[in-house]
Amino acid sequence: MTAPTRGRRPGSPDTRAVILAAARERFAGAGYAGTTIRAVALDAGVDPALVHHYFGSKDDLFIAALELPVDPRTVVAERIASSDPDTGPGERILRAMLGVWDDPALQPGLLATVRHLLEPGGGRLVGQGFLPVVLEPVGELLGVEDPARRMPLAASQVIGLILMRYVLRVEPVASLTTEQLVTIYAPVLDGFLIGPLP
Amino acid sequence: MTAPTRGRRPGSPDTRAVILAAARERFAGAGYAGTTIRAVALDAGVDPALVHHYFGSKDDLFIAALELPVDPRTVVAERIASSDPDTGPGERILRAMLGVWDDPALQPGLLATVRHLLEPGGGRLVGQGFLPVVLEPVGELLGVEDPARRMPLAASQVIGLILMRYVLRVEPVASLTTEQLVTIYAPVLDGFLIGPLP
Repeated sequence: MTAPTRGRRPGSPDTRAVILAAARERFAGAGYAGTTIRAVALDAGVDPALVHHYFGSKDDLFIAALELPVDPRTVVAERIASSDPDTGPGERILRAMLGVWDDPALQPGLLATVRHLLEPGGGRLVGQGFLPVVLEPVGELLGVEDPARRMPLAASQVIGLILMRYVLRVEPVASLTTEQLVTIYAPVLDGFLIGPLP
Repeated sequence: MTAPTRGRRPGSPDTRAVILAAARERFAGAGYAGTTIRAVALDAGVDPALVHHYFGSKDDLFIAALELPVDPRTVVAERIASSDPDTGPGERILRAMLGVWDDPALQPGLLATVRHLLEPGGGRLVGQGFLPVVLEPVGELLGVEDPARRMPLAASQVIGLILMRYVLRVEPVASLTTEQLVTIYAPVLDGFLIGPLP
């Protein structure tokens, strides 16, 4: 472990929380692209190496700052990797998303993250952060061409479904089964991910 | 005009605002179905007839409490009525929605309403209020069968598009032209509104 150069806030149990609070504030204020590990370290009064030690890369720090109950990069990737490769990308993304969201242990934390992303400044976290860090790699994993263009279209449907089903809980969407949702929404997502675009 | 029975808060310029504040609080706390004109009048310390005088029906009061920059029942209905009847319902709804949202005079007010509906309690306002009061009549106007079942599906896509384009402003969705959006999203909405359902 690299020791902090300033002698302030060494690796105490609080240091991690102080860094995380600084990261959250900076990501929200400056967006994903406008945030550096160095700036977060400065805000937290620690050496940048300590930020790397606790959180790894800037992507890792961003995911940590979202306070998700799971790391979507690994959980969604694992679910997609273990899904039937003969089904379309829409169905594989949808089943991965529903599997995570319908887990009662994860849903409260996911809801808190969604509310956080909908606050002012959240747009930059989604567009510059969540999209390239989480969603585009998922698209690449599924062989989606031009994921920077197609994944936002798929996200426009997935976010709407998450809002209606889990945030607003509007019927009949809130009570549809996984199989009903796959029948209704998988073709829509396939259209965005592998269909013709204007 | 019916005079208030209690002698408190007669028809002064403030009375309308007091009633509206009481309505907003009650709709948010008790939902659309759980709110009555009588209860709002009691909260505001006025006669129910005065609520009717200022706001009309419970539906009208609900729309007023949402503080929308326009009454969506008339604006969307007018746009749909004047649209090409030979195009599909998805395109007609989409063009009406985009026409209202892309109007810079209306967008700030619409954004405020969306944020209000996403707050806790907003789900009941959407599911029990906005859906039957605004969206189902739009479906009926377009000849959509079983609008209580189909309009929430269309709403799941329209809400996601509104979030990505106007609230979060995520590219490339934020910069697509109306014609590109119609090409991409109208077939999706037609699937929900007139396609086969499980």
